[in-house]
Amino acid sequence: MYTIETPLQIQDMARGAVLLGTGGGGDPYVGEMFVTEQIRRGRLPRIIDLDELADDAFVLSIAGIGAPTVGTEHLISERLLTDLLARAEAFHGRRVDALISVEIGGGNSITPLALGAIADLPVVDADGVGRAVPQIEMTAFSIYGCPASPLLIADAIGNSMIVNATTDHIAEDLCRAAAGALGAHVTSALYPMSGADAKRVSIRGSLNLAYGIGRCIREAREGTGDIFEELTRYLESWGGRRAAVLFDGKITDVRHETRNGWHWGQATLTGLRDDRQTCVVDIRNEFLTVRVNGRVVTMMPDLITILDRDSAEPMTAGMLAYGQRVKVLGFAADPMLRHPKALEVLGPRVFGIDEDFVPIEQLIERDAWPDRMLESAV
Amino acid sequence: MYTIETPLQIQDMARGAVLLGTGGGGDPYVGEMFVTEQIRRGRLPRIIDLDELADDAFVLSIAGIGAPTVGTEHLISERLLTDLLARAEAFHGRRVDALISVEIGGGNSITPLALGAIADLPVVDADGVGRAVPQIEMTAFSIYGCPASPLLIADAIGNSMIVNATTDHIAEDLCRAAAGALGAHVTSALYPMSGADAKRVSIRGSLNLAYGIGRCIREAREGTGDIFEELTRYLESWGGRRAAVLFDGKITDVRHETRNGWHWGQATLTGLRDDRQTCVVDIRNEFLTVRVNGRVVTMMPDLITILDRDSAEPMTAGMLAYGQRVKVLGFAADPMLRHPKALEVLGPRVFGIDEDFVPIEQLIERDAWPDRMLESAV
Repeated sequence: MYTIETPLQIQDMARGAVLLGTGGGGDPYVGEMFVTEQIRRGRLPRIIDLDELADDAFVLSIAGIGAPTVGTEHLISERLLTDLLARAEAFHGRRVDALISVEIGGGNSITPLALGAIADLPVVDADGVGRAVPQIEMTAFSIYGCPASPLLIADAIGNSMIVNATTDHIAEDLCRAAAGALGAHVTSALYPMSGADAKRVSIRGSLNLAYGIGRCIREAREGTGDIFEELTRYLESWGGRRAAVLFDGKITDVRHETRNGWHWGQATLTGLRDDRQTCVVDIRNEFLTVRVNGRVVTMMPDLITILDRDSAEPMTAGMLAYGQRVKVLGFAADPMLRHPKALEVLGPRVFGIDEDFVPIEQLIERDAWPDRMLESAV
Repeated sequence: MYTIETPLQIQDMARGAVLLGTGGGGDPYVGEMFVTEQIRRGRLPRIIDLDELADDAFVLSIAGIGAPTVGTEHLISERLLTDLLARAEAFHGRRVDALISVEIGGGNSITPLALGAIADLPVVDADGVGRAVPQIEMTAFSIYGCPASPLLIADAIGNSMIVNATTDHIAEDLCRAAAGALGAHVTSALYPMSGADAKRVSIRGSLNLAYGIGRCIREAREGTGDIFEELTRYLESWGGRRAAVLFDGKITDVRHETRNGWHWGQATLTGLRDDRQTCVVDIRNEFLTVRVNGRVVTMMPDLITILDRDSAEPMTAGMLAYGQRVKVLGFAADPMLRHPKALEVLGPRVFGIDEDFVPIEQLIERDAWPDRMLESAV
């Protein structure tokens, strides 16, 4: 167990969470300000290890659901969060012992810290995906047998719902529909689980990974080395998961659309050194695939992030705009997401991509990957 | 208090309810069969007068929400109805004393009778509109201060929700969105109210009116007089509300579309004696307006029904098809729906019609209404 004691730590963690959020998972701005204010008031978020949880502890997730682009327009409300917790505890008939993030992202890994600080509840150093995903049923929680229902939904003006869905896919449909009816964004208390379940179905260490990534980027900026080299080295130190810069370019086209409670879009990049090189990133809340010169080089559920090419500040999909000079980074997903059972739910075919999942380490190393591309990238 | 003891009574009541349903309110077929089966098993629906309710009685509505065209594909399930009642009683923490219809229509006035028969609960001879309406907030319950929330929603395969909305307009949006996510039709337990409230906000006598209409049509068929003359005479005996046949023709064009959980459409009729005469009926679950030769002759919230021209069998919007020979009937709404407060919520402007509400009795009697039109109609 440790506490977050400085705004800098929250900034680092939020920066890393945006990287792991792969374009989605919410914007960190509002949440970061909110938690910083809690720290100033002496309400310090506490983080505990999964193994510190008692097996019979009651663990609950708190998450924003809806289009991340709209999430930034819905400020975090202390009243909404404490009301939601009180409603959830009344509904489940017991006190919550710890909070856990559904996914890691600028918003959804910070919101539990915000409520944890307010309500003096520890937040588990783990989450449901180790990244962000566009649909509820795509979490390891769901895939490995811990349902999102019964779940509570609330908005900031007093509307609320309790959902009992027979599958997490239906829970997703109901939440998305409710988000649409309530201004495209709601806050949810979901995935009620025991400590024993949390240990079985969570991605471990996600908050520390986010914090480490954010700190690595900040320290590399202050140093003299190449930020991206230091960042990929740090990422690869994390369980040997492969990380690589996939493209270095300028955004020459970007489309954003908020539809059915999702943010859809596509970003096209052109090589900085060779403008015949192109890179296309598809978006559905998160970045789904990276295609360099038409060839997929990273795909769901592996992680894709777009970062400012000078500061290595990771960007959410909603931040992308014409003319930005960026690097595209790929990072192998946690092994729990690459299991065949997981690929059925969040593999490329689920997103309409007619290809089997191929891990990033194979995609960027097989013969077809041109050396000059990697050269132009890193 | 009286009981419904024969299938014929249910058939009559359902027929009248379809007329009052003004195209919407659900198809009676499934509900009628279901209640008939209950009667055969000795479970007789009991109907009580509003004034028989104790002021502190707990009254609840049961209704289908969604596109009526899809409602016929969702059979009434005894388990769904009893589960929904049990969930509602658990949630509200008290036993239901009586059921009341949200609206009168082939489905939504029969469903409470079905549950009443199964659960041995009386059904009040009243409802929330005296007709059917496409949105929750358009009931007299809502308009006169009795909210639909907290409400429960369930489908036949075990999905359920509890909705606490700050307004009935938001409740409508949430229910419609949920219906969309759950196959376009759900069953809801809504408008929890006291007996005192029920007396204040209900349209009185609706079940008896429906029964009387259905019986009048059946008896007129067996007699030698003109069915439509007898029907309009019966309707006008009901509090002096004006009723008139507005058009006699053949359906020459009809469009149906199920979109966003509603049934949208338009029917165009051509005069039988003079094919230059046209009549257009706009549909949004219910019939919204009748235009004869471009001029509105009846509009929401006054009632519009399309009936088979020979048998006077009233039709739901979903039954309309090319080639049918029909008569269009207008019937003045209950005075509670014509109050300025009500017209704000279910007057023509709400449906995008750029005209103030004019009562049917004025529309069909002012000079502009050509005599020959009435002649061709009746």
